Amino acid sequence: MISRLTVKTTGQGLYDFSNELNGIVMDAGIDQGLCTIMVQHTSASLVIQENADPSVQTDLVSWFNQLVPEGDSHYTHVQEGPDDMPAHIKSALTTTSLSIPVMDGKLALGVWQAIYLWEHRRIGSSRSMVVHISS
Amino acid sequence: MISRLTVKTTGQGLYDFSNELNGIVMDAGIDQGLCTIMVQHTSASLVIQENADPSVQTDLVSWFNQLVPEGDSHYTHVQEGPDDMPAHIKSALTTTSLSIPVMDGKLALGVWQAIYLWEHRRIGSSRSMVVHISS
Amino acid sequence: MISRLTVKTTGQGLYDFSNELNGIVMDAGIDQGLCTIMVQHTSASLVIQENADPSVQTDLVSWFNQLVPEGDSHYTHVQEGPDDMPAHIKSALTTTSLSIPVMDGKLALGVWQAIYLWEHRRIGSSRSMVVHISS
Repeated sequence: MISRLTVKTTGQGLYDFSNELNGIVMDAGIDQGLCTIMVQHTSASLVIQENADPSVQTDLVSWFNQLVPEGDSHYTHVQEGPDDMPAHIKSALTTTSLSIPVMDGKLALGVWQAIYLWEHRRIGSSRSMVVHISS
Repeated sequence: MISRLTVKTTGQGLYDFSNELNGIVMDAGIDQGLCTIMVQHTSASLVIQENADPSVQTDLVSWFNQLVPEGDSHYTHVQEGPDDMPAHIKSALTTTSLSIPVMDGKLALGVWQAIYLWEHRRIGSSRSMVVHISS
Repeated sequence: MISRLTVKTTGQGLYDFSNELNGIVMDAGIDQGLCTIMVQHTSASLVIQENADPSVQTDLVSWFNQLVPEGDSHYTHVQEGPDDMPAHIKSALTTTSLSIPVMDGKLALGVWQAIYLWEHRRIGSSRSMVVHISS
């Protein structure tokens, strides 16, 4: 019912972990149900986005970087580096948990949807997620 | 437990489908539980917002259009039309799935809350959603 | 399975209710499961954020106030005060419901994560939330 999933990141960007998550769903051996995933960090987040054209991911990252620039003179939380407060803001603008129905034994994602871990820090990390599956 | 729900859209805007979703919940015949809904597209999204004054919906659409303008020279994903990349960004800024507790046999929405499918493309479409209900 | 939780607010800002929510989870007496919380308002919202350094919360509030200023001449929804339409927009940019896996009898939050009710109105209120817990 509860599993852990880790995604290793190497810098800012979207990391598709749909296959790993579908593997956990298939191991659960259910036909219908609900899969909920939560990332245990506040400088990385979750998003379901288009997986057909990689330029969508590039544009998402650059648009968010333009909206939430580093070095804003209003930031008071600066001790953890210039990209940390922007990372928290981007995390708040996207989401920390997502629930996806399970149909026919797998995630009921649309044809062009994938689920991504969005790393907002410049230096990558190992990002821990908790997965809950119910039938 | 799993149902499908389709909303037909005729252009950008918020489409209230609270009644259709409550119908599915009532058909499930449960008193308490959880209803999760996911939209299977990445250029439309979900939002719970005020249903009392329609000007809230108008202002939401125009504010998001101002924040995420078409024709930004930084966009590289342009093949699907000038409104497609803005649609993906607006989808990331809102959400693709929502979970709503069920009480007394219906969605436990607040007095002035409704659940909306937010169409971000200029030309409407038929938007598929998957609903999971558990008791 | 279903509980109610109220947070009293005294103005704009993030209000940590992780302890209250963990109390409800512990009362449920489950080891593993899922906790879903929904706020029944559209001018307050939910966010999971860092609880280590309070400056993160200060910066989040001031950044969102800068992004969504009061008195924008495009707003048509102005009858409920200059901070009401910005509150609806900030609510749409964050989220109204969140699901958190339960492990070892408590919320599986990361070491530096807390769950916050984000009050977007200048004058505080009593904010109602509905909690669903399943094992």
